Formats: sequence, C-alpha cells, structure tokens
Amino acid sequence: MEKLLCGVDIGGTKLSTTLVQCDGTVLDKCIDCDHVNKKENELVEKIAGNVNMLLRKNRLTESDLLGIGIGCAGHIRFRDGVIITTSNLKGYKNYPLRDEVQKHFGIPVILDNDANAQAFGEFKFGAGRGYDSMVFLTISTGIGAGIIINNRLYRGMTGTAGEFGHTIVEPDSELTCTCGNRGCLMAVACGMALPHLFRKKIGEGKKTKLDLPPGFDFNKVDGRLLLQGLEIDDPVSKEIILDSAYYVGIGIYNIFQALNPPLVVLGGGLMSWGDFYLDQIRKTFYGLARDMIFDPFEIAVSRIGPDVGVIGAASLALELC
Amino acid sequence: MEKLLCGVDIGGTKLSTTLVQCDGTVLDKCIDCDHVNKKENELVEKIAGNVNMLLRKNRLTESDLLGIGIGCAGHIRFRDGVIITTSNLKGYKNYPLRDEVQKHFGIPVILDNDANAQAFGEFKFGAGRGYDSMVFLTISTGIGAGIIINNRLYRGMTGTAGEFGHTIVEPDSELTCTCGNRGCLMAVACGMALPHLFRKKIGEGKKTKLDLPPGFDFNKVDGRLLLQGLEIDDPVSKEIILDSAYYVGIGIYNIFQALNPPLVVLGGGLMSWGDFYLDQIRKTFYGLARDMIFDPFEIAVSRIGPDVGVIGAASLALELC
Repeated sequence: MEKLLCGVDIGGTKLSTTLVQCDGTVLDKCIDCDHVNKKENELVEKIAGNVNMLLRKNRLTESDLLGIGIGCAGHIRFRDGVIITTSNLKGYKNYPLRDEVQKHFGIPVILDNDANAQAFGEFKFGAGRGYDSMVFLTISTGIGAGIIINNRLYRGMTGTAGEFGHTIVEPDSELTCTCGNRGCLMAVACGMALPHLFRKKIGEGKKTKLDLPPGFDFNKVDGRLLLQGLEIDDPVSKEIILDSAYYVGIGIYNIFQALNPPLVVLGGGLMSWGDFYLDQIRKTFYGLARDMIFDPFEIAVSRIGPDVGVIGAASLALELC
Repeated sequence: MEKLLCGVDIGGTKLSTTLVQCDGTVLDKCIDCDHVNKKENELVEKIAGNVNMLLRKNRLTESDLLGIGIGCAGHIRFRDGVIITTSNLKGYKNYPLRDEVQKHFGIPVILDNDANAQAFGEFKFGAGRGYDSMVFLTISTGIGAGIIINNRLYRGMTGTAGEFGHTIVEPDSELTCTCGNRGCLMAVACGMALPHLFRKKIGEGKKTKLDLPPGFDFNKVDGRLLLQGLEIDDPVSKEIILDSAYYVGIGIYNIFQALNPPLVVLGGGLMSWGDFYLDQIRKTFYGLARDMIFDPFEIAVSRIGPDVGVIGAASLALELC
C-alpha cells in the first residue's frame, strides 16, 4: 500500500488532524477545539493522541505514514522545528514543538508556518499542479504567504520568508498592523483593516444598506458581513472590497517584480467575495504590470478549499521525498 | 594556468571589457565609448573585437577563458540570452545578443541583466563572500537588484526577478517612474527622484547653501550635486538624502520580510553619500524590523567599487562551475 500523509493544523480555534493519501484525498480527520490555553506539553500530548487515535480508528500504524506535518501560524524556525512566536497559542516562545512531538513517533515530524503548509498543499494538490514555482497568498484576518521555487518551499535564513503581509505599501497609512508598523500590506488590505475602513466610510457620511443594530460595534465588521453587503449591492461594502482588492493587486504586482513567478494562488476567507473581488485584484495587477509581463503569468484561486490548512500540513511530508 | 574570466559591461556611455582572474583580480581592461547608437550587428562585432584584442594583447587565446559574461541593463530573457528591452541601446527589442556573440567564440557566452551580474560579482568577490544567499541593491539613477539563493542567481520565470526598484511603496506618490507607474521604489528613492525633490523643497521656501547659477535647471540635480551639498552642510541636500534613505530602508525591510536573506549589499552611485546616508537607511530598517529579526542580518556596502559592473559580468562565467 502507498504510504499516507498525516497533517496537523494548529489554528486559533481548531486543532485539526487528518490522514491524507498521496494524491491529496482526505481519508479521515478529527477536529479538536480544546487546545487553546493549554500548556506546551499538553498540546504535544493532544497532537500525539489525536494522530494515534486516527491511526487506530483506521487500523493503521505509524509505519503506514510517510511523515507527520504540522502547520502553525507565526514565526517558525524551520530548521530547528521551533515556534519562535505565535498568536494562536498564548505564551509560546521558542518552543521546540517538532522535537517534542517527534519523541512520540519514529517517523519524520515536520513543523512549518501555516501559510507555507497551505502553499505547499496548493502546489502539490491544488492550483499549483503542473508548475515548478509559485507564490501562495492567503487573505483573511491577516495575509500569509508561501514561496515555492523549483518544487520546494523557499524559507530563507530563519524560515520566515514570504511575509509579504508585512511588506510596507503605504508608509503614511493611518492603519497599523499587529506588528506595530503602519501601512503593511496586511494592515491595509485584509480582515484587520475592515472595521477601520467601515467606520471611516460611515463617518464620511456614506450610507450602508446593511441592516445594522443600533449601537453596532464596528469592530465586528468582517469579511462575512461585507459578503452580505455585496449580495445586497451595499455601496459601502463594495467600496471596501474594492479598496482591499486594490492593495492585494499591488501586493501581487510587487511579488511579480520581486520574484517573477509564473503563478500566484490566492486563498483565505476573503476570497469568498468572489469574482467582484478577484476582477478588481486582476485589474489592478494588469494595470501596473502592463508591458512588463513577458511570459504567461497566472493569478489563480485556491482549489483545495477550507481544508487547505491541514491538507497543506500533511503535504509537508512530501517534501522529504 | 588557472583559467580566466572575461566580462563585458554594456553601459549607457561605456562599453567595458575585462580579463579577470578567478579570485576577482582584474588582469586587463578596455573601455570603449563608441557603442551607443550602433546597430545590433555592429555592437556584436565591437564586443568580439574588444575581447579578441584584449586576448591578443595579453598573449592569450580564448581557450584560456572559462567563459564570457555580458551584463546589460534592462529586461533580459536569461534562458534564451535575449535582450527584451534596454534603455541603454536604442531600438533593441528581443535581440538574441548572446547567440550572436557566441558565433564568434567556442567558449560559453552568458548574457544577464547588469544588476544580476553586479550581484553575482559582489557575491563571489565582494561583500557577499562567505554567505550562501544575499540580495544586492544598486542605487543610482534607478534601482536594480539581484537575488542570490543557495549560491546561485535566482532569476524567476523570464529572468527578470529582483526588480525591487519597480515594487510600489507609495501608491499615491506624485513621482512617476520611467515604467509609467507612480510610487515605485525607484521613483521615490533614487537619482530619478532628485530633481523633483529639490525643486519641491526650494518651492516650499527652503534655502540651499549650494551656489547655484541663476536660472539653474533643476533637472541637473544629481547625486554628485547633493554630495557637494552634504559636504557643506546644506539643509536641502541633507533632507533629500534622508528622504531617499527612508525609502531605501523600507525597500530593504520589504526584501527582508519577503526573502529573509542574511545579507543585503548596497552599491551604486548614491552610496557615495556615505555614512550619513547609510546610517539613516539602517535606522529606518531596524525601526521597522525591530523584534522580527531572529538571526544575524547584515546591511553591507559593496566592496568591489566602480568596476563592479564588468567584474560582475565576468563572474557570471563562474556560475557554470
């Protein structure tokens, strides 16, 4: 039997574990919502327990696995398998998660940034199939990215390459990123910008068609609310979606100039805004790149869907092949 | 005898040719100022003639060379050895310069973008020695760059990777780049921005200590003039130099977030502004990167000096080893 892949995605609310076939098909998965606020060693026990439970349930042993890939948000020191910092797990600093999980298994354990994992999943099983290089951008509350060059993840010195979300595209912006800087791509273009942009447009006297309760807390404005707005042709929601698309278009253009890849794949929650969003992203990109594109260049949408995190984590084991 | 390298740098005013030892030492060189406005085939004859002349003069034959590297500004399709466009040679479009020069020689001929050539030269013989990855930025009239990953130039799909000068860092800028876009790094940060910035500051009522002739044409403001200003403590010159440093600092920060290299090397004419300039570049970078640097990161200055173009071109032949 061909070996299986095991993926673990450490999210902000969910700890997902899957068994995945080498073609990307999910064989089985388990979702656990009890990992937040756990101590480091408790998380390790949970991960090992969930993997072993899935193996037992499917009458498999770890020798049926090629490896276990773990994706985690934040700064990961890839070579050492260490979580430097992560916003998903409070208090974790320089924690050697990979080696701690490895103690439970005889097969390889790989720890990487969640966007890198998603990028590699999309490269192996999704929109990146058939390419040898690509950049993946996930656009949701923040913006993460992964770079694939010559069939491998490019990670840089520490393992933190691909942080296009933190590149500065509007230095004088009034929008500040969680990193503390003004005008990062993710400060102006994605989920974290939406409350501010909504508040600002309402403050400018623009009228929304959304039926908001009295005393509505603008901090609750998110991609889902604007999707509702888009569906009822709300001008405020549409303007904000176009603003976001404009900056994402600039981000893709900057990636194009810097790395000259043949493909950029877009994923993440805000892609639910659909063609209205994507068309403006493309329009901005092509308006900037014009006669500087000399070979076929594609902006594609993630094909894996909501499981990209955990399937991507599983795909990391394929990098060992 | 160890083989030699031959480099050809096609500049806007000078066609330089060198024989270089494998440690980067220049053995002999020739400068030719008669290549502009020549037809394509005349340029090829000139390049071949200059190389052969240098060989004869040094009692060498082409079998003493490892290869001939040619650096040229503009968009180069590396794999095919084609100049797609270049501002240095009027009317050249999709010209297969490499193969045309190759017809004159039995040893390998390599054609690459001038900034890539400089980057590789600096990597092999200059500030990049001892590293396996780095980014080189040349800051003069425009901004060029070359990316080295795992001891090799990273060129992307077409060969045009590393165009950080065209990444957009100030979308609403009143400064337009030669590419036609607003707020590219090179539009706001380097030589091409200086006339506008000078005119603007004078227009704001700022007084320069520079002794400018009546009716002075602000389009003549360049790095050299501002260096004179810096030397006499001219406040206008110093402000502009700090503005440039600010954007270069942002550019380096964006490179750091995107590629996470251990080293960025700065070269080009504006580096003659010295420590006053470099200190502000570093200050901007470290002010942005703060606690996001997890491994030693260096901003260094080019060590090769004014011959970096042609020595860099020669170094391209070492990529074949």
